[in-house]
Amino acid sequence: MRNKSVKNHTMKLAFVLSATLFLIAKLYSQHSISCYTSVGFSQVEVTDHFWKPKIDLVATKSLQACIYQTEIATPRIQNFINTAKHSGKFVGIYYDDSDVYKALEAMSYSLKNHPDTAIENTADRWINYIAAAQMSDGYLDTYFQLGDISKRWTELEKHEDYNAGHLMEAAVAYYDATGKRKLLDVAIRLANHIDTTMRINNRQWFSGHEEIEIGLMKLYHVTGNDNYEKLANWYLNQRGKHIYAYRPEEWVKPEYWQDVLPVKDQTQITGHAVRAMYLYSGTADVAAATNDSGYIHAMKTVWQDVIYRNMYLTGGIGPSGDNEGFTKDYDLPNEQAYCETCASVGMVLWNERMNELTGDAKYIDVLERSLYNGALDGLSLSGDRFFYDNPLASNGQHERSKWFGTACCPANISRLVAGIGNYIYGVNDKSLWVNLFIGSNTSIKINNTSVDVSMQTNYPWDGKVSITVSPAESKNFDVYIRIPGWTQNDIVDGNLYFVNNGVKQSPQFFVNGKPADFKQQNGYAVISNKWKKGDVISFEYAMPVLAISSKKEVLYDNDRIALQRGPIVYCVEGADNNNEAWNFIVNPNAVIQTIDYKILNEPVIALQIKATIIQPSADGSALQSTEKTITAIPYYTWCNRGKNEMQVWLPTKMKEIKLNY
Amino acid sequence: MRNKSVKNHTMKLAFVLSATLFLIAKLYSQHSISCYTSVGFSQVEVTDHFWKPKIDLVATKSLQACIYQTEIATPRIQNFINTAKHSGKFVGIYYDDSDVYKALEAMSYSLKNHPDTAIENTADRWINYIAAAQMSDGYLDTYFQLGDISKRWTELEKHEDYNAGHLMEAAVAYYDATGKRKLLDVAIRLANHIDTTMRINNRQWFSGHEEIEIGLMKLYHVTGNDNYEKLANWYLNQRGKHIYAYRPEEWVKPEYWQDVLPVKDQTQITGHAVRAMYLYSGTADVAAATNDSGYIHAMKTVWQDVIYRNMYLTGGIGPSGDNEGFTKDYDLPNEQAYCETCASVGMVLWNERMNELTGDAKYIDVLERSLYNGALDGLSLSGDRFFYDNPLASNGQHERSKWFGTACCPANISRLVAGIGNYIYGVNDKSLWVNLFIGSNTSIKINNTSVDVSMQTNYPWDGKVSITVSPAESKNFDVYIRIPGWTQNDIVDGNLYFVNNGVKQSPQFFVNGKPADFKQQNGYAVISNKWKKGDVISFEYAMPVLAISSKKEVLYDNDRIALQRGPIVYCVEGADNNNEAWNFIVNPNAVIQTIDYKILNEPVIALQIKATIIQPSADGSALQSTEKTITAIPYYTWCNRGKNEMQVWLPTKMKEIKLNY
Repeated sequence: MRNKSVKNHTMKLAFVLSATLFLIAKLYSQHSISCYTSVGFSQVEVTDHFWKPKIDLVATKSLQACIYQTEIATPRIQNFINTAKHSGKFVGIYYDDSDVYKALEAMSYSLKNHPDTAIENTADRWINYIAAAQMSDGYLDTYFQLGDISKRWTELEKHEDYNAGHLMEAAVAYYDATGKRKLLDVAIRLANHIDTTMRINNRQWFSGHEEIEIGLMKLYHVTGNDNYEKLANWYLNQRGKHIYAYRPEEWVKPEYWQDVLPVKDQTQITGHAVRAMYLYSGTADVAAATNDSGYIHAMKTVWQDVIYRNMYLTGGIGPSGDNEGFTKDYDLPNEQAYCETCASVGMVLWNERMNELTGDAKYIDVLERSLYNGALDGLSLSGDRFFYDNPLASNGQHERSKWFGTACCPANISRLVAGIGNYIYGVNDKSLWVNLFIGSNTSIKINNTSVDVSMQTNYPWDGKVSITVSPAESKNFDVYIRIPGWTQNDIVDGNLYFVNNGVKQSPQFFVNGKPADFKQQNGYAVISNKWKKGDVISFEYAMPVLAISSKKEVLYDNDRIALQRGPIVYCVEGADNNNEAWNFIVNPNAVIQTIDYKILNEPVIALQIKATIIQPSADGSALQSTEKTITAIPYYTWCNRGKNEMQVWLPTKMKEIKLNY
Repeated sequence: MRNKSVKNHTMKLAFVLSATLFLIAKLYSQHSISCYTSVGFSQVEVTDHFWKPKIDLVATKSLQACIYQTEIATPRIQNFINTAKHSGKFVGIYYDDSDVYKALEAMSYSLKNHPDTAIENTADRWINYIAAAQMSDGYLDTYFQLGDISKRWTELEKHEDYNAGHLMEAAVAYYDATGKRKLLDVAIRLANHIDTTMRINNRQWFSGHEEIEIGLMKLYHVTGNDNYEKLANWYLNQRGKHIYAYRPEEWVKPEYWQDVLPVKDQTQITGHAVRAMYLYSGTADVAAATNDSGYIHAMKTVWQDVIYRNMYLTGGIGPSGDNEGFTKDYDLPNEQAYCETCASVGMVLWNERMNELTGDAKYIDVLERSLYNGALDGLSLSGDRFFYDNPLASNGQHERSKWFGTACCPANISRLVAGIGNYIYGVNDKSLWVNLFIGSNTSIKINNTSVDVSMQTNYPWDGKVSITVSPAESKNFDVYIRIPGWTQNDIVDGNLYFVNNGVKQSPQFFVNGKPADFKQQNGYAVISNKWKKGDVISFEYAMPVLAISSKKEVLYDNDRIALQRGPIVYCVEGADNNNEAWNFIVNPNAVIQTIDYKILNEPVIALQIKATIIQPSADGSALQSTEKTITAIPYYTWCNRGKNEMQVWLPTKMKEIKLNY
């Protein structure tokens, strides 16, 4: 067994080394138009009361579930071992390799804030299997290697480049986390193989499931090899050419994988939600590197189509299970909502990039909404149960699962939570950006000066935040602090959802306890100062309970309100209300109380509101109504106490009744 | 174009020829213990007011849909053409060949009561493709022939023998209908190939989806070659040996395909419902031919497990969509009921055989229940829409489909309706059996005398039946007339379901208008007589509306009643009740009226019952209750007027309420 202090020392060295290499590579590839560069997970220590326990939970429970399911209960790892031995059949689904890679990416992030020798050893062992399975020409996909290798790169729906993209993401993350480059070298060889096969030969091909664009851009940034950027761009440009010969009897229509128009001509969100999010995330990466305004313009238009007409209050997207994606504008059923966990993770990925590109905080408003609600709901409070779909209402039929045959969601929510450090800070040559309010420490460089940053907060339960900014030497720079849209009654521009009872806050900021001048810009408070060691910025956003309505076009939400406090969307669950959540109406103007509450071991703020409850009489011959107080809990905590009725949108009128349903 | 009268003449000749050959083959293979032999479709002309229009609908609509989907919209036929040409890839699912065969079987039956040159020409064309695709060694399965032929007979879940069984059924049906034996010869070659590969080499194998046993037994009866009977028996004996190496991570457990115990040791119904029905149908065929009481004893025990603990009132089976099958005793949820159409078809197939084996009318009671309710519900009144699952309650989410990716149900319900003639009569050397009450003509041989039989009735809307029995010369024989269980308050022995308000009828039978002596035996009235030309048997079963309750173990039906009249189970649908079917309770003792009614163009008897309706007040602030009359319609007609709420089991108490669900 390795000595722990030696181990920690080695890891610290690795961090320094990798961070240095990373910055060199970034500079080398720097012709970005981005407003800032996000500070990566490997540079951020998360100390947060809310997120740190979740990071630990992911390390001790979720990743254990991923590892067990990937290596023991299913032959995902065995497929690599068999491939290396040239023996055995492929068992599983053709995209199963990606689950291994996504788990490795999550494990990489986890090592930063929850170092764990066993997890690192597992990762190293898996990486050995993966490297041994790679073909001499760089190709790597166990489905084709154990099957009919002559068919590789002939069936574009078979996810070879999707798998490859996840491998690249894992490789960069593991390199970033540990400094070990074995997996990175595998990814580089595979990327070179694909570059030759695809771009250099200009093959008739596009990716049946976008993802490789993201992986290639990460590989580009870490290596500086601009072939990968060109290849990512090549993939984007293949879209909209209808390379896939669509047959009317098949379920895959061009809109399913965003192939109706070239990316730059796209204006509407269509098809499979996760595919769309990965496409636009990769597009944003390419746009940032190439300064291609065509991409940026298209994405801004598509983004409006998502946010103003096709997003749930939880930040979830993709209402339909049939195509795991979008249907038509304002079609947002609550009980039937698909809202795949991975799609909400994709919303986080894309909106972070849009914010980097534009410096507009509205993207972080959406990111925060998806993160704390639609995505986090995918992970049980116990860490070892998962939701694939995240409905906004339930008749009790929904249940968290240990695992899924198509196992994208568990590893995806794990990598999001373990990598939460990726979304807190941004930096450029003359400013620090604070996007999320999460207790954490980082050390960055502004204007050639090293700056230690430390944040403390009880967010999301209250809006008090304190940030210590300690430059190595006193220095002029700007600190951008996001002013959340919900403090301004501004639920994503108020287009799809609006606040009934809110008051626009005029936030105040203090430096070392004294009111500070600031200007407002694109949703940020910008504090310009000559900062010195130990300066403390403090502020408090009030967190009233907001009663939200939706645009009347969302028929499912008519005559209903939803409750939100800070970034947290609430729901009423049977577990807190005599096992019923469909037997009441609320007064939209009723006073709403906050209380300290616990869901299992999770301390939360719950809400209480007076409601008219309808119940059958004892003999079942009639109905009677009574006034009672009902309790609403954070949406992300629902369904942790068994199958249960639940509603996010609470009715304000009696319009329909079902007896004994 | 062929001259029509020549054509009809040819067909008649073919019928005579095939019927003769059939009887010769039957005699040749006769060591059956059966109580009677069912009179096959090719000997029965259906004239019925209820079924004949449905047979025509199947010919003009359902079969057209099958043909369009099989040949035009999907490449199921193209797969055969490509196989013959040794070119192209297999497109579709590995069991798609079976849809072609099942359609051919349905087309065969249809030709009897709805002759149609276009359909026959299509069948002949398809048969040419099929014959051309067969390998020289007799093997035929386009999935493996267009894929990796070296893998044939290595993956027992790939349905090769399932496909083969359907080919055999189609071949025998087409031969029976037309006298043409091209497809029969294909089936014989394939059966010989399988016999060599499997039985003669005693291969480690069982069928992943039972069906071939049925096909082989039909082939045995038509050819007299007892290798096929032996092969069918071999297949039965392979079950329960755990030949399939079950891996814990996989979804297929031994009970899924009835592999826990040898067939003769089975006592419980398990797993996939259609698989189970096909297994026991094939087992009954083998038992009838081999006089193997072990099979019969096992099936009687399993049958009780189905009927007393695991069958819906509609005769549907298999509550769960997860395994398309059975779960645990009394687990019969209404809204979530899977009740696959094919499983109800399977209930008809199995129960007909059990009745043939035992002469006990209780099996026909079940057959009739599944036929008029669970199965017929699978076919829309327009003939071109289908249900795959047939729930007993709906919140309006269910909808009939044009087609399904797995397309078993449309062809299955089509072959059942087109072949309804198979289930009406039975015959042995000294008796005629009348099982179903369906207007029809047939000509049979009893005691070497030809007997013309003609039945007229308005069943299922009233219970008046008239049967003309015309022997060529006066002759002593018995006529067995089924006394339906519902006339005796006997809803399948009253074990799972029982009648609240019934009166046991004492049926009377008349011969030429005069009361006739009869004895009651196993649910039949047996009239012994010296019959002469033109004798008319008449009788009338009263059809009161029965209020049915279920055993309390069926939690979903507690404090509810269901309505049945004759064999028809009723439901309340929103379309007849202000679009709501979940807003009332009924008094279980309320008087129920019958009315003439129409669902689209379908004339039916509907029911009316007083109910307490709960509705919101105009301003949505409160609920109010009113007494109103609600209308119930035959279950099989529901969901023909759009998506709709529906309930079969009507609540008698208010126990739970959902507002605005």
